[in-house]
Amino acid sequence: MLSQTVINRLKEIVGENNVVTDKTGLFSYSYDGTLLSGDALGVVSPQTTEQVVELVKYLNEQNIRLVPRGAGTNESGGSIPVENCVVMNFARMNQILEIDTENYVAVVQPGVINFDLQVELEKKGCYFPPDPSSYKASTLGGNVSECSGGPKCFKYGVTRDYILGLEFVLPNGKIINTGGRNFKSEPGYDLTRILCGSEGILGFITKIIVRVIPTPVTTRTMLATYNKVEDASQTVADIVAAGIVPTTLELMDNLLINTTEDFCHAGLARDAGAVLIIEIDGYPSDMDEQVKTIGEITKKADAREFRVAQSAAEVNQIWASRRCAFGSVARVRPSYGVNDITVPRSNFPKAIEGILKVAKEFGVTIGVVAHAGDGNLHPLILFDQRDAEEVKIVHAAEQALCKMALGLGGTISGEHGIGLVKKKYLDSEFQPVAMEAFRKIKRTFDPENRVNPGKIVEV
Amino acid sequence: MLSQTVINRLKEIVGENNVVTDKTGLFSYSYDGTLLSGDALGVVSPQTTEQVVELVKYLNEQNIRLVPRGAGTNESGGSIPVENCVVMNFARMNQILEIDTENYVAVVQPGVINFDLQVELEKKGCYFPPDPSSYKASTLGGNVSECSGGPKCFKYGVTRDYILGLEFVLPNGKIINTGGRNFKSEPGYDLTRILCGSEGILGFITKIIVRVIPTPVTTRTMLATYNKVEDASQTVADIVAAGIVPTTLELMDNLLINTTEDFCHAGLARDAGAVLIIEIDGYPSDMDEQVKTIGEITKKADAREFRVAQSAAEVNQIWASRRCAFGSVARVRPSYGVNDITVPRSNFPKAIEGILKVAKEFGVTIGVVAHAGDGNLHPLILFDQRDAEEVKIVHAAEQALCKMALGLGGTISGEHGIGLVKKKYLDSEFQPVAMEAFRKIKRTFDPENRVNPGKIVEV
Repeated sequence: MLSQTVINRLKEIVGENNVVTDKTGLFSYSYDGTLLSGDALGVVSPQTTEQVVELVKYLNEQNIRLVPRGAGTNESGGSIPVENCVVMNFARMNQILEIDTENYVAVVQPGVINFDLQVELEKKGCYFPPDPSSYKASTLGGNVSECSGGPKCFKYGVTRDYILGLEFVLPNGKIINTGGRNFKSEPGYDLTRILCGSEGILGFITKIIVRVIPTPVTTRTMLATYNKVEDASQTVADIVAAGIVPTTLELMDNLLINTTEDFCHAGLARDAGAVLIIEIDGYPSDMDEQVKTIGEITKKADAREFRVAQSAAEVNQIWASRRCAFGSVARVRPSYGVNDITVPRSNFPKAIEGILKVAKEFGVTIGVVAHAGDGNLHPLILFDQRDAEEVKIVHAAEQALCKMALGLGGTISGEHGIGLVKKKYLDSEFQPVAMEAFRKIKRTFDPENRVNPGKIVEV
Repeated sequence: MLSQTVINRLKEIVGENNVVTDKTGLFSYSYDGTLLSGDALGVVSPQTTEQVVELVKYLNEQNIRLVPRGAGTNESGGSIPVENCVVMNFARMNQILEIDTENYVAVVQPGVINFDLQVELEKKGCYFPPDPSSYKASTLGGNVSECSGGPKCFKYGVTRDYILGLEFVLPNGKIINTGGRNFKSEPGYDLTRILCGSEGILGFITKIIVRVIPTPVTTRTMLATYNKVEDASQTVADIVAAGIVPTTLELMDNLLINTTEDFCHAGLARDAGAVLIIEIDGYPSDMDEQVKTIGEITKKADAREFRVAQSAAEVNQIWASRRCAFGSVARVRPSYGVNDITVPRSNFPKAIEGILKVAKEFGVTIGVVAHAGDGNLHPLILFDQRDAEEVKIVHAAEQALCKMALGLGGTISGEHGIGLVKKKYLDSEFQPVAMEAFRKIKRTFDPENRVNPGKIVEV
């Protein structure tokens, strides 16, 4: 518990209403997108970089740790409070400071919600490509910390590819500015990219300079339906080989087709083995021929149906299923665990096989959503969190999925980070020398292990 | 001088013919693309990672430092030998280990020349976008170390965007593997991108996993000629605003037009203020409309000529000038210094103005080549290296150019690194906290300051 002296000082720094210490209030900050939770001593919500600095310095003096938090949507336990900590909530640092359409640069505070930035950019004919599925809730600070992906990575890459610079408060309270506004810049080490994806364990993002792009002139959305998931995989490989670079190649398997149909009635074929959402964007004259080629490729791969959306309503209908995918499985079982394995694209069919094998071996229900173009699969394990025995089995199945991905030359995390959830598997992907490098970097930035300790690696 | 015992041991490790210690032999490794030079105690050329490890461990024992070297084309003194050092020459580690067309991945040794990789990739319908102007000579290891750019960054980004993983020998002789073969991967810190662009001061790259892309189906090359350089700048801004993403937007000013004409007779208008080489690539149906729009934009910006290459010969002719740009200035003065400032694109015209001002103020001749789409300018200062007084003035002018770029929100280095040449200007771009972070990272990887010491920052 925080002493009244500490509480008073925190209130002095951020204002009376921006410190939470009551049990009910703290509950809202105790969990994230995982099944984990933890209790903080308090929650503070600064509004300026100066307040962040003051909080860091004061809590250092008090020997109290800090855990940064955006919207808490992350899937790896990265924002779960740890022992003896105060949560630094960035919800009030939610200003879009600048949209510079001449240079295609925007400057935002970390608490800006991804979707809110997209809305403002759209008014000015711009676009920020990284839009994780959580984008209506998740913050840019969280996106940078997790190096978020999303459905458009195949063409546009991940968050780190759009971060030009950061203002960052180090664990000792000093402010560091990395990068800048230049499209191309490389003096010194790439501090921006050390911080991007560091999951909030090196300090606090207080300002983000992002690169934006002009809104694509045209977009076309297609839906291909398959009897077998392997045929959808083949389509992905063939589209890439044809030199087409779609923005999106999203796959859902039979289980997800059915759970999403139950939920949003988008009209998918319930007996299909898989559907593939394919989206391309670009110059108008470019579209017809690509759509035609993609259609031919799906036919060659035995798609039973290939549909091109003819209206905005139809585009929304096609996306409706994908957007509700995670939530929709709640009708089958009360809990689900999102996995985030990635394999080289050519091993995608083997990864699908591997998932089926894990499901069978552990007797668990798994549905698959995948950013297929990236080889990034999200096997969703459905279960009941209240059943301790089942939870054990689920964890074992998760570990088996990670092992399977590594066996296929893959990785245990494509876009959701390591946090607490995958910490125990990290050394199965990395050798001791790399693990030691991770620890050294943490120690270099945070020698006293004050910020978000215990995530990614123990130091 | 190396003792005979040391020389013998080095020969044992890498073979009799792969150790250079004679004065004439050492001379070839004493310089790079800058005007600097330095003497090494010896040069060793390993062929395997194991030999690299052995060399590192043995020379550590002998208290001799190591400086890694690719082709020595770099423009910042990064591969210049320092005191008491042996140069590790990667020329013999020049194997393309794998081209995996299914996953669009290639695995190469660091000494592979960029161009050689391009040739092999082309045979398999693939393409590695980062092709710095030095690509016919420079190595992939050097490209990664400098995070090289080139003329295609506007559409395709820089080297770091194509590096999936590295095998790297640390200064203590331990091997670290970072990243992997996955298109999307983010477990732990981004070690790959700490090492990429670190200018060979953290250790030795021994293997590189790169992402490649399918060869673009079609390319169109255009040349626009202007009376005024400002009109060329306007064209760049308008093309971007139209939602077109060219691969290339290369600008040359009147001085370069004339020096390149003297050299290669490409048919540029000698009285023009600037030319712009514009290249787009993509799907065939896409091309005509974009070319038409670009033509209209150049017309609107008062271009006096707009030409679309109609044959491969004409493409080569257009590129001939740009390719010989750096060398061509030798006809005017015997030496030149390449600067590498970058500014936000909207400040491009101001940067051009600033360059003219510096030329006038210091009484030096400056020609401009620029990757205009990136805001990356290479002002070439022409002078005579043998004239010590003139060299002093040139250095002062270089410093003024850096200052001018920073004043416009720019950076002192776009793609050529810091090395020795710009080390003294680094703290005018970065505050003490960032400078200290650079030093800390160096110390973390190389606590005894054994590898390429004295580059980027003093520790």
